Amino acid sequence: MELWFTEQEKDHIRFGLKAEKVLFNDKSEFQEIQVLETKAYGKMLVLDGCVMTTDEDEFVYHEMIAHPAACIHKNPKAALVIGGGDGGTVRELLKHKGIDKIVLCEIDGMVVDACKKFFPQIAGGLSDKRVTVNIGDGVAYIKDHKEAFDIIIIDSTDPIGPGEGLFSGEFYQSVARALRPGGLMVAQSEAIWFKDDVLGRIHRNIAAGFKHKRTYLGAIPTYPRGTWSWTMASNEPFDPKGFDKARFAAVESGLKYITADILPGAFNLPPFFREKLSKND
Amino acid sequence: MELWFTEQEKDHIRFGLKAEKVLFNDKSEFQEIQVLETKAYGKMLVLDGCVMTTDEDEFVYHEMIAHPAACIHKNPKAALVIGGGDGGTVRELLKHKGIDKIVLCEIDGMVVDACKKFFPQIAGGLSDKRVTVNIGDGVAYIKDHKEAFDIIIIDSTDPIGPGEGLFSGEFYQSVARALRPGGLMVAQSEAIWFKDDVLGRIHRNIAAGFKHKRTYLGAIPTYPRGTWSWTMASNEPFDPKGFDKARFAAVESGLKYITADILPGAFNLPPFFREKLSKND
Repeated sequence: MELWFTEQEKDHIRFGLKAEKVLFNDKSEFQEIQVLETKAYGKMLVLDGCVMTTDEDEFVYHEMIAHPAACIHKNPKAALVIGGGDGGTVRELLKHKGIDKIVLCEIDGMVVDACKKFFPQIAGGLSDKRVTVNIGDGVAYIKDHKEAFDIIIIDSTDPIGPGEGLFSGEFYQSVARALRPGGLMVAQSEAIWFKDDVLGRIHRNIAAGFKHKRTYLGAIPTYPRGTWSWTMASNEPFDPKGFDKARFAAVESGLKYITADILPGAFNLPPFFREKLSKND
Repeated sequence: MELWFTEQEKDHIRFGLKAEKVLFNDKSEFQEIQVLETKAYGKMLVLDGCVMTTDEDEFVYHEMIAHPAACIHKNPKAALVIGGGDGGTVRELLKHKGIDKIVLCEIDGMVVDACKKFFPQIAGGLSDKRVTVNIGDGVAYIKDHKEAFDIIIIDSTDPIGPGEGLFSGEFYQSVARALRPGGLMVAQSEAIWFKDDVLGRIHRNIAAGFKHKRTYLGAIPTYPRGTWSWTMASNEPFDPKGFDKARFAAVESGLKYITADILPGAFNLPPFFREKLSKND
């Protein structure tokens, strides 16, 4: 028998990976969860049929969602990760010694448990003494925490399913209120090539909560169409080129994707994509 | 009936696009040639089962293979494109008014004819008076032309099939001899995520012909794994950051992918990829 995992984008694009084994297959209160052993990328976490992370390329997503904010913020001490139950974003934030408090708020405890078991190299940091894992709804959590964090990272699934509430304008307004002065939000903001209004909706909603936003890009071969975007936002101006060079140098040797050139360079957007975003501002 | 085009990478990754129509399907002396109408990317050229170009994303590949060399070279007048029968690379070179002679050497006349018919917006420049189309073997052509070009672009298919000879060390030595002093070569150099020795072979062979080489990256959703590489090489030192700003500014308004920041930034390679390349230097 040949076993192929297939992720389909609407009715017109398919991405398939040969699976050697199904290591985990269950359904939580929120979603279907699988862990597959693939030939191309090692172990892979799949939520509701979408690739979330793989052994081989997870470093790109996790470095890119964590380090730009951790280096561009003036002096981050407290960070909140909403979603991100695999622990990869927390692992990257932990590399910053100045960050002394990290809260992970993940709605689905089964994701955290599966990742601790099958991806210990990703989830290992969740037991660090600087980290608090809160299994619960990020939308409710954020409303209860005003001016509590310097960095808030929205490490969500796609804007359908359990992650949907993490893309609303009301949610981004709550995120803005949960940030301390000078605070930065980073949200994963989907693939750059999508034609429909997914990007438009995300960016209009972020703008409902924040005065300033900048989108940046990275290469992720297991995500739809191979190039992913994240959006950084704040109610105070921030400058990707003005990141803290010493803070970056302190973590640089452990990074496999980001360099001191790539960090600000990722914010240089191709005109075709800038134009797409400008239609939604 | 549902018709799906599927490109398979070895036995472990598949990429599928829903096809609405087969517009052209023939076999030349060299390869199978299809033109499909896809829902996701418009018309698509397929050679021997591999996506070559599509209406929607061709601008990335063609801008990236042409403009960096055209702007980094000190004063390019004559350019040779080997392969590139769709005409996209020639179309981009034509935007540089200083280039007064462009030769396209494509082995397969059927590719040129199909592209003129189905991709007029890509192939249109082939009838420009500055362009000579030579249907023939690039390996033989290059041996007959010593110190004849300022820029030589190897716009080949993959290193199996009719493109194979365009990846050998002997070929790159011929390319070096066909360049005038200060001349630059650019070759498409495959996907950055490949694990096997394809990249190693390409880079070792380029090094057999050239003292200096620099690889750069761009996002192409229809190519394997979504991020592509090109390698620029010369027997004289060159500096991507030292590109001609005025020459770039003269073409910038027509570009959809490259900006004055993205041009040099594309040469900033992630450490995981630099490490892969350094093993083959």
